[in-house]
Amino acid sequence: MTPNSTYSGLLTDLYELTMAAGYLETGFEARATFELFVRSLPPRRNYLVAAGLDQALDFLEGVRFSDEEIEYLRTLPVFSAIGGNFFEYLSRFRFSGDVWAMPEGTVFFPDEPILRLTAPVIEAQIVETFLLSAINFQTMIASKAARITQAAAGKNVIEFGTRRAHGMEAGILAARAAVIGGCLGTSNVAAGERFGISVYGTQAHSWIMAHEDEGEAFRKFLDIFPEQAVLLVDTYDVRAAVEKIIALGRKPRGVRLDSGDFAADSKWIRSRLDRAGWENAIIFASGDLDEDRIAALLAEGACIDGFGVGTALVNSSDSPTLGVIYKLVEIESHGEVRSAAKFSAAKATYPGKKQVYRYARPDGCFEHDVIGVEGEQFPGSRTLLESVMVGGKRSAPPADVFAARELCGLQKSQLPPRLHSLRDAAEPYPVRHSSKLKTSLGDLRRRMERAASI
Amino acid sequence: MTPNSTYSGLLTDLYELTMAAGYLETGFEARATFELFVRSLPPRRNYLVAAGLDQALDFLEGVRFSDEEIEYLRTLPVFSAIGGNFFEYLSRFRFSGDVWAMPEGTVFFPDEPILRLTAPVIEAQIVETFLLSAINFQTMIASKAARITQAAAGKNVIEFGTRRAHGMEAGILAARAAVIGGCLGTSNVAAGERFGISVYGTQAHSWIMAHEDEGEAFRKFLDIFPEQAVLLVDTYDVRAAVEKIIALGRKPRGVRLDSGDFAADSKWIRSRLDRAGWENAIIFASGDLDEDRIAALLAEGACIDGFGVGTALVNSSDSPTLGVIYKLVEIESHGEVRSAAKFSAAKATYPGKKQVYRYARPDGCFEHDVIGVEGEQFPGSRTLLESVMVGGKRSAPPADVFAARELCGLQKSQLPPRLHSLRDAAEPYPVRHSSKLKTSLGDLRRRMERAASI
Repeated sequence: MTPNSTYSGLLTDLYELTMAAGYLETGFEARATFELFVRSLPPRRNYLVAAGLDQALDFLEGVRFSDEEIEYLRTLPVFSAIGGNFFEYLSRFRFSGDVWAMPEGTVFFPDEPILRLTAPVIEAQIVETFLLSAINFQTMIASKAARITQAAAGKNVIEFGTRRAHGMEAGILAARAAVIGGCLGTSNVAAGERFGISVYGTQAHSWIMAHEDEGEAFRKFLDIFPEQAVLLVDTYDVRAAVEKIIALGRKPRGVRLDSGDFAADSKWIRSRLDRAGWENAIIFASGDLDEDRIAALLAEGACIDGFGVGTALVNSSDSPTLGVIYKLVEIESHGEVRSAAKFSAAKATYPGKKQVYRYARPDGCFEHDVIGVEGEQFPGSRTLLESVMVGGKRSAPPADVFAARELCGLQKSQLPPRLHSLRDAAEPYPVRHSSKLKTSLGDLRRRMERAASI
Repeated sequence: MTPNSTYSGLLTDLYELTMAAGYLETGFEARATFELFVRSLPPRRNYLVAAGLDQALDFLEGVRFSDEEIEYLRTLPVFSAIGGNFFEYLSRFRFSGDVWAMPEGTVFFPDEPILRLTAPVIEAQIVETFLLSAINFQTMIASKAARITQAAAGKNVIEFGTRRAHGMEAGILAARAAVIGGCLGTSNVAAGERFGISVYGTQAHSWIMAHEDEGEAFRKFLDIFPEQAVLLVDTYDVRAAVEKIIALGRKPRGVRLDSGDFAADSKWIRSRLDRAGWENAIIFASGDLDEDRIAALLAEGACIDGFGVGTALVNSSDSPTLGVIYKLVEIESHGEVRSAAKFSAAKATYPGKKQVYRYARPDGCFEHDVIGVEGEQFPGSRTLLESVMVGGKRSAPPADVFAARELCGLQKSQLPPRLHSLRDAAEPYPVRHSSKLKTSLGDLRRRMERAASI
């Protein structure tokens, strides 16, 4: 009943372990290359933002099977006929593979591998579930945050969603991904401690309600937080609350609206605060916000200096799933390299180790990407996948969440402007597969058809 | 950069800690009662299933602030003017309150408190974020699982969604909640170890693709898992794959379809397996399934014995957020008890400690619920909130996930049948507020209006 360790080998789907046992027991020794990518953009997304790599690499460096965990596996019926070899293997298990990946914060598109992993096939299999989970989730949230901060047009956005996240760890990871996508900070204190992200928030409705009198609730809070208090003014009546604060004669850092007509109330409050001589007291808004509502508020001329976004951000509510997949593309066994692909159900996967090549105009604006075979030469392009792990050890220092946010901000500014629409862009960003890649897909398909017809 | 401890006091929103400092520094001593509930059903939900209580109680028993965590808080600008008292308080912090809650697996409706917590106001505030996060998420997933298992009409449903969950912890908690809502088990091994849930899964496409020949891939897997293998037949061509397995002459436990036309393929496979004399080999389906697709497949007569449901289940994709809230309803200070409520923006909260009273017909079918004041008498009804924690210690042994699943199954069977519709029921389940509760809301509103007009 105790929580599993952060890097437990049990953090996986059972079939990864049965396949691992299968490879080991049948003596199938091979180095496999898997690639992580999405097949298509979710609704209302014109690009995605890579995130979650740091947690993935932490796991690859740390994953172990403890004795207790192995004891548990031995009790499972599916392993009843499996000998000690497999469990002995697990007790020594370390990830020893190589990883190439796009740095966190990179803007990417469908079919482009965002991570490529080469390792003994057993290892590559055991770590699959964690890699997908870490990268799928944070990429979805960073991509949502990029839209929300785009809509906020330079106003601050703070991630407020922990209570509506999928548990506390999801809240912490959502805060991290939100910052990569462009948010200024989070309400989540643990995320602040763990990643150095700025934390925000001062009072809730309960502070006001716990006091008999709203004005007294404000006064007492100002006593304790004279410089920092952002006073919540919508518990009973917004305008009456603002008058009570002004009557106290002590300028708070700002006020927060959490319900009501944000456009009308914020304009009234701005004018009232300015009249009181408090031009630099901020107006902050939160409560059921998303990119559409923020864009509409700013279009209405709402006087809001910052937005707290919770539920819609940490759940990517308008498009709540992402389809990051992990596909075998190459197998190397006894010196022989064989490409792998899947053809069924109209879901072709291109074989072989790939690289993404990006072309930009002289002014920096991205023109198009080419997905090619690793090692192909595309003069004038830049490669997006970098070596991040060699032999199970990071080959570069851990990513910093702020560097990732900066990269994301830069790349967003380099996107063709039509992709910044909150709706589907008239024309998607152009991504093509290289001729060499198309040829190798065709060759493989013919080879497998021949094999099937024999 | 290291992960925060499971029961860290930093697992909260910053405003909980600033309010805590505010209460402490202003000498505001009071016992507060908060209630957790939802204001309305999400789209396409006719009832909800309570889940997540066990994790909430674990946290309440275990929450602490370590020295390092307190050091971190001292570095935050918002606390720069806060004296040592507050940090000293945090270093001694324990949750000492009382909790009443609906047992996990209970079917409930909007406005009904599913948890009621009474504690010193500081403590009640610090634990808010965790409680909401734990209960909101698992309740959403258990409620989704109840729909999916309803649609599966007695066929087994296995939770397969970890890779699409919001990180690994979310995957583990989703597996737990899915089982409470009616699933048989999960693919998540860590959830199996932690909660004793049955784990499932044998092979992925990569096993097939890693081998040069599909038939050899099947044969080798059967060598290692002769009794357990569920062979994946859709990597290249479903019917050719089934023929290869039959040609091997060794009956697998079953086959799995992960793409294609499940209805047509499953009927063909069933007939082919039966013809081979393998009537008891199962057919399992997975891949983009949800309650609507499962219901449609069964209506088409698909020969599927079990369903693996991932993305849609662990994200509650059709209705991906739930609005569990935590509202202050009563404050007791220096012997005086005062009700609290919030009236703004058409979001009234009923004041005072409440209880939920459920009426059933003699055959067990639920008739209606009454939300009343704690201690009210409603002869013939059953109360749903039970004492689960007294003085910070559990007053009952931890809930077992299987007991919760049994309770949920029983209560689902007692619901008026119209609520089992996958669409909005023609008529919602009747829930009314007691006269006493309505009177106290009116009294409080008048008292506050008088106070405001002075």
